[in-house]
Amino acid sequence: PESKLPALGTTIFTQMSALAQAHQAINLSQGFPDFDGPRYLQTRLAHHVAEGANQYAPMTGVAPLREAIADKTAALYGYRPDATREVTVTAGATEALYAAITALVRPGDEVICFDPSYDSYAPAIQLAGGVLKRQALQPPQFRVDWAHFATLLSEKTRLVILNTPHNPSATVWQKADFAALWQAIAAHDIFVLSDEVYEHICFAPQGHASVLSHPQLRERAIAVSSFGKTYHMTGWKVGYCVAPAALSAEVRKVHQYLTFSVNTPAQLALADMLREQPEHYRELPDFYRARRDRFVQALAASRFEILPCEGTYFLLADYSAISDLDDVSFCTWLTTEVGVAAIPLSVFCADPFPHKLIRLCFAKQEATLDAAAARLVAL
Amino acid sequence: PESKLPALGTTIFTQMSALAQAHQAINLSQGFPDFDGPRYLQTRLAHHVAEGANQYAPMTGVAPLREAIADKTAALYGYRPDATREVTVTAGATEALYAAITALVRPGDEVICFDPSYDSYAPAIQLAGGVLKRQALQPPQFRVDWAHFATLLSEKTRLVILNTPHNPSATVWQKADFAALWQAIAAHDIFVLSDEVYEHICFAPQGHASVLSHPQLRERAIAVSSFGKTYHMTGWKVGYCVAPAALSAEVRKVHQYLTFSVNTPAQLALADMLREQPEHYRELPDFYRARRDRFVQALAASRFEILPCEGTYFLLADYSAISDLDDVSFCTWLTTEVGVAAIPLSVFCADPFPHKLIRLCFAKQEATLDAAAARLVAL
Ligand SMILES: CSCCC(=O)C(=O)O
Ligand SMILES: CSCCC(=O)C(=O)O
Repeated sequence: PESKLPALGTTIFTQMSALAQAHQAINLSQGFPDFDGPRYLQTRLAHHVAEGANQYAPMTGVAPLREAIADKTAALYGYRPDATREVTVTAGATEALYAAITALVRPGDEVICFDPSYDSYAPAIQLAGGVLKRQALQPPQFRVDWAHFATLLSEKTRLVILNTPHNPSATVWQKADFAALWQAIAAHDIFVLSDEVYEHICFAPQGHASVLSHPQLRERAIAVSSFGKTYHMTGWKVGYCVAPAALSAEVRKVHQYLTFSVNTPAQLALADMLREQPEHYRELPDFYRARRDRFVQALAASRFEILPCEGTYFLLADYSAISDLDDVSFCTWLTTEVGVAAIPLSVFCADPFPHKLIRLCFAKQEATLDAAAARLVAL
Repeated sequence: PESKLPALGTTIFTQMSALAQAHQAINLSQGFPDFDGPRYLQTRLAHHVAEGANQYAPMTGVAPLREAIADKTAALYGYRPDATREVTVTAGATEALYAAITALVRPGDEVICFDPSYDSYAPAIQLAGGVLKRQALQPPQFRVDWAHFATLLSEKTRLVILNTPHNPSATVWQKADFAALWQAIAAHDIFVLSDEVYEHICFAPQGHASVLSHPQLRERAIAVSSFGKTYHMTGWKVGYCVAPAALSAEVRKVHQYLTFSVNTPAQLALADMLREQPEHYRELPDFYRARRDRFVQALAASRFEILPCEGTYFLLADYSAISDLDDVSFCTWLTTEVGVAAIPLSVFCADPFPHKLIRLCFAKQEATLDAAAARLVAL
């Protein structure tokens, strides 16, 4: 019988991690740490499980976690969302993104994304019947040309999706970008979905700029974040979104039928972690900056050209000096022959992407980074 | 701004549990145990967390859990699915149902459900642009009239959704029902979504009949199950589906963008549980039969008429002798004035439901059931 989704393949992350495993390559493709998260968080999980906190959480998330998220948001972005009506806990940021898109995008609605863009946006938009308008950004800065952006707006534009710190380009938005976005859409009836899952992995001197710091934009915005990235526990699958009550209500209508609720003891453990050890996420930029700098330093001896990295745990590398292969072929070769798995950048883009760029994850132990760098330097 | 989903409200489970809490009523509404799950399962979770199994699981689920599910399926239903290509772990059964519906139903496709039906099917079908055809079943037997069913089939029928043991009616399908379903759809190009989340809570002498035992139907079927119900851990949110490779591939296309993967340490703990303590689910019918019988016995002194219960941890009660209120009003009154929360049956039905039936959850400690029964007997 005929497939409804003939064009959808398996995500690049699943493909590359499988290839890495098959060839025992050092896996710098899919983004996850090869070290463990905080012991405190783990013991709190065991505690809540043993205490019997094992039944359905409220559909919106457990109250202590929603409160802790509201407090953190207030401390960092100068705006305290209502924990009851404006914070929703989801099965990872992926579910928050999917629920937000599904709740807002109607058949025929247009959605603007910036390419390269994370691979889950387009399928969610397609499944909602939306029409994707992609604005291609150019390396190495990947800055938005706001004059061009204005030409993409139409009567049908319903949603703009942005991502900062940006996966895969490792660039960040500044306050000026949000100001420009607001200027462009103020007169239109348009929502904003702001993917900020790397909010705590930002190396820019001015720090992470959140949509939640912008008084006008946040009235129309859904901000999405993830605990997996922040606490080195990508396998726990707890994320959340913050949005005005009316918008949160729409997201929740979908969330309740998508997953209903999220792992209860993990939520309670994360609430403890946020409340008791706020220094953890405050120290995270330094933690990852050290890894980034070590890896960049080691790669200085290679023929790769390393692009600036202002945030996320990814680094872009230009391999023009090494190979003429397209980036997908190059990544396959790199994994199978060199023993280092990476992500080709073209998979995040709709238009032909005439650059020779790969993405390397540096959320790894120093020994892993050193071993990978040694192989890459030898090319 | 205009809502895309004006007709979607908050689920009855969230509403009734909130009302129960506000009025400190005994909560027999939303289905979850008020006792804890197996200690072994909990210690295995703590073990895998401490061992560092905290990063992304494979998108399809961890291999040991998929293997254990395949083994269990073979042992119980005489058919071993391929663990790699035919078993997919999801964020609860809710996600499996949503992903299956989204993967299969195209705009304009017709989907047949049997009313009363679980409340997440209709919104998922609506979001996919499908057209729901509901066949109303009549208490107390809730049997399918297969002659009538045949009249619902059309060129546009894409999917049939069934649920056995059935929430909320507590009835079960027999092998003959599956045979009749096959006879009706054999000549059509129609898929089957079989919601079997209460597969291990079946009191019928012949046991649970799974779609997976039917050689022809299983070639077109997605069978969905849940560990939350089986292991008294509704808050862990791990479910799964079994389907032929081609169908599983379609479900996975959606699953990977809905949640990507499921809590890793919980999956590993469940794999240990399935493998090491298979007697747990084998003894589950006796465990729940004792609770059911105790509760039914206690209610014999009431003016409720209790319907037969062949499976699930729910019981239907007819309150015609007690009140003229409609079932929603009766449940509100029961919660706020009598102190027992229940679910009105009409919320699971599209057509006006001219019966006076409520659903009571008996997955509760004996003391809870006794206290609730005392209040209900006093009416
Ligand atoms: C959900 S698997 C992909 C992890 C990730 O965000 C990435 O590698 O970009
Ligand atoms: C997902 S909350 C509802 C639990 C349940 O399945 C029920 O009460 O019917």
